[in-house]
Amino acid sequence: MASVRGYFHPKTATGNASLIPTPPWHYSGDLLTVEYRTDPARVRELLPEPLGLAEEDPGAVALIWADWQSCAASGEELLDPVRAQYKEAFAVVRCSYKGRTYSRCVYIWVDKDFAIARGLHQGYPKKLGSIHQTRPHPYGPAPRIEAGARFGATLAAADRRLAQAVVTLREESESNGFVNGHPMAHHRWLPSIEPGKGLALDELIESGAASFEAGPAWRGDAELELFEAPTEELARLEIREPIAAYYRQVGVVWNGGTLLESGTSAAE
Amino acid sequence: MASVRGYFHPKTATGNASLIPTPPWHYSGDLLTVEYRTDPARVRELLPEPLGLAEEDPGAVALIWADWQSCAASGEELLDPVRAQYKEAFAVVRCSYKGRTYSRCVYIWVDKDFAIARGLHQGYPKKLGSIHQTRPHPYGPAPRIEAGARFGATLAAADRRLAQAVVTLREESESNGFVNGHPMAHHRWLPSIEPGKGLALDELIESGAASFEAGPAWRGDAELELFEAPTEELARLEIREPIAAYYRQVGVVWNGGTLLESGTSAAE
Amino acid sequence: MASVRGYFHPKTATGNASLIPTPPWHYSGDLLTVEYRTDPARVRELLPEPLGLAEEDPGAVALIWADWQSCAASGEELLDPVRAQYKEAFAVVRCSYKGRTYSRCVYIWVDKDFAIARGLHQGYPKKLGSIHQTRPHPYGPAPRIEAGARFGATLAAADRRLAQAVVTLREESESNGFVNGHPMAHHRWLPSIEPGKGLALDELIESGAASFEAGPAWRGDAELELFEAPTEELARLEIREPIAAYYRQVGVVWNGGTLLESGTSAAE
Amino acid sequence: MASVRGYFHPKTATGNASLIPTPPWHYSGDLLTVEYRTDPARVRELLPEPLGLAEEDPGAVALIWADWQSCAASGEELLDPVRAQYKEAFAVVRCSYKGRTYSRCVYIWVDKDFAIARGLHQGYPKKLGSIHQTRPHPYGPAPRIEAGARFGATLAAADRRLAQAVVTLREESESNGFVNGHPMAHHRWLPSIEPGKGLALDELIESGAASFEAGPAWRGDAELELFEAPTEELARLEIREPIAAYYRQVGVVWNGGTLLESGTSAAE
Repeated sequence: MASVRGYFHPKTATGNASLIPTPPWHYSGDLLTVEYRTDPARVRELLPEPLGLAEEDPGAVALIWADWQSCAASGEELLDPVRAQYKEAFAVVRCSYKGRTYSRCVYIWVDKDFAIARGLHQGYPKKLGSIHQTRPHPYGPAPRIEAGARFGATLAAADRRLAQAVVTLREESESNGFVNGHPMAHHRWLPSIEPGKGLALDELIESGAASFEAGPAWRGDAELELFEAPTEELARLEIREPIAAYYRQVGVVWNGGTLLESGTSAAE
Repeated sequence: MASVRGYFHPKTATGNASLIPTPPWHYSGDLLTVEYRTDPARVRELLPEPLGLAEEDPGAVALIWADWQSCAASGEELLDPVRAQYKEAFAVVRCSYKGRTYSRCVYIWVDKDFAIARGLHQGYPKKLGSIHQTRPHPYGPAPRIEAGARFGATLAAADRRLAQAVVTLREESESNGFVNGHPMAHHRWLPSIEPGKGLALDELIESGAASFEAGPAWRGDAELELFEAPTEELARLEIREPIAAYYRQVGVVWNGGTLLESGTSAAE
Repeated sequence: MASVRGYFHPKTATGNASLIPTPPWHYSGDLLTVEYRTDPARVRELLPEPLGLAEEDPGAVALIWADWQSCAASGEELLDPVRAQYKEAFAVVRCSYKGRTYSRCVYIWVDKDFAIARGLHQGYPKKLGSIHQTRPHPYGPAPRIEAGARFGATLAAADRRLAQAVVTLREESESNGFVNGHPMAHHRWLPSIEPGKGLALDELIESGAASFEAGPAWRGDAELELFEAPTEELARLEIREPIAAYYRQVGVVWNGGTLLESGTSAAE
Repeated sequence: MASVRGYFHPKTATGNASLIPTPPWHYSGDLLTVEYRTDPARVRELLPEPLGLAEEDPGAVALIWADWQSCAASGEELLDPVRAQYKEAFAVVRCSYKGRTYSRCVYIWVDKDFAIARGLHQGYPKKLGSIHQTRPHPYGPAPRIEAGARFGATLAAADRRLAQAVVTLREESESNGFVNGHPMAHHRWLPSIEPGKGLALDELIESGAASFEAGPAWRGDAELELFEAPTEELARLEIREPIAAYYRQVGVVWNGGTLLESGTSAAE
């Protein structure tokens, strides 16, 4: 009986063409995080039932830039780095579900197709963007990771700049921020192929890192700007009050999640 | 009760950020098609049960380049053309399902994120690629659409060239080829978020153009080359015998499809 | 005696690696032109002695988008179209030199390296950008070239949008505008490799099309916006008064120019 | 008297639009170097009189990948990193001039326009390419800089892969290779705007780093492959015998060079 293989499309006889391999997926990267408070109503409007606002600090937002190298178990992508390297920028809020606090990515842009595919699986609402962040370096004019160091970060999509930040590090920090610190509560949605029939896939899932290692977190402050664009709503998460900014180098493993519920979205 | 809107992710209060708008979707474009025969076993291995080989000419393959401008009902994308223009290259085979012949796209590369999102909805197994095809033009050195005109077409992904063709037009033709002429039978697959639990979405769907207009088709011949790459299997559809090549300018509307069956894939 | 060959760098034993081949260069393309008046002082400040303002309508500016396919004598680039196709957006003003009126490109962005190299030769001050313009098409939602047709055009560089226009065609026109209608008076400048020693190359040259064919020009009107960016000065050519917009399909040959004078620039 | 400003084009009243600022230019980056021997005749054919083959090891070639962040004196590019970050891959040989040994870059690909402009000034024969190299990272699957670490590097242009390498580090090393260790002897060439009149700019210049700092160099071995392409000649520098591979993090300042001679090239 004929079958096809591969963790993702295109599925083939060998599975070799799959856009993404079977998890676990391994990541090395640098995270630049800017946390601020927006109007909690702007967070609430992004949370479909049964999700609600987090009880504490419900208007907190983290806008995070990440510069990644990633691979599956074999690690072969690292040796053909066009297949391993990507950058992303994403906005995270917190929400509550059945009395527990979750993080939730509400907007995200990446610059590679394998990252889009992973996002479909993990419930990250990925688009393509152009993302840049200053890299630390031990020599020359680029910053070291130290007090006073300054890192820039920018995001554009469809030839428009959507966000830019300049972060100045001040001191080592216990935490790397609190908004993106919970398990993620994400939806996986796909419309029915038949017009008017609603969603064919409608899942609320939970996931998080299977393992994690990291260097010291650094805390600092940020100048952050968000810009309007006709097909983006990031700037609706308007900046009311800065919280702090963070820099941290991390190693992460992701290996799946848990289905929380299915077929119940308050999504149109 | 809180809800969110938008045909696709990210779903928001307004729906404006959705990566793709609600169908119908309208397309203007040029199709360059190269048809050839491969070993039918190489086609069969891409067809999971309950699909089988087409009865007639089961090894026929169409490799198609398309240069598109697309939009939803408002047409606003056409006036911000970075949001309307994209190119794609895709391989189509035929298959049989319940006694009927379908076309099926087995590999496809596009160069924009909205095209990837549409493909997820329509069951096209899209990756990002770099796609180029000669454009006809009424003045200067570019070809007119006429006998003797020559058009080049190339496909690359992950910094490797995967395919290239040079097509010479010979004469107007009744058809634009036969491999991509049936309704499409596609799978929509997404793995479960929980490791080892198989597929969360597993649909066999049918779709095709809701309306179609076109100029005259031109028939000619092609020099076609396929190249190996570590993460691609297009070259397994090796060229045994050329059939013909075609060029046609078309206008197409797509407006959904039909669910054929669900949860029955012979896919691992 | 050892020599190297090639019209441009890198020069080699065969000349095959040259970034651009020997002229003549042949072009097929579509021109979308938006003409408007700015403060003549903003034009004058871009014209080093011995150039001066044009006598008539000295504040006229043309912002032009072009969608090209180009090749040298063999035409082989057209069959590997990644080497033939490029887009550009450029700002043209007029100037006077020894009593004659010239056109002069003061800013230009292109999206391919061979176009940058040609610009170095021709005195176009090219940078890389992301350029898009709506393409006419005979089928589907894209516009035909006819009264009422609307074309969008955008320019971005360094992840910022710099300009955007929407042009509506009204009627066929005798002209395709007047700002870009003269021979070009361009400088070719390169600083000395030795600090503080001024210019190593300092030429004022004249060039224009060696031959030209075209379809009918269409005249219409434009909504044009220019945006500020930290490393660009296009928006200094602020829009005081619209003139008109134009659309035309052309075929052009370029085959060198004439040295007007050398070593005399009022450039620092 | 009207003048214009700016180190490079476009020259304006303020100089702010110049594609590159006045040197000195500051760089932080990682260099991955693969040295090997080719047929000395293939090196000689790239050296126009008065340059000759180096006396010792005349067939030695260095193929170098570099991952840079760069800026001028203000450092502002580092905070808008799309303007600071670029990657390059380049082939270096050695040559002799008036009894002294020089390094000479014979092919180079970069991925930003400001890097192309600098190359024009410095005599590097730059084209655009797509360049990737594995980055060291202290956490997760990416390599540390240590014995046994493996780094991949790839180069593509015009949608074709031109070179790829996998380097395995073995031990710290006194040197970072010898081929790129001399002052650079480069030509700056531009053809006359008038057909048949030869070169308008024809300079042999010398330049090198104004200052340099670096971490320890690591030595290892490489698997290197070069691929043919219709417009490239890198693969003519065929690999006869591997020498070694190196990895080093560096900080560099460049601040101009010296004119050696002018108007004497044996270049056609």
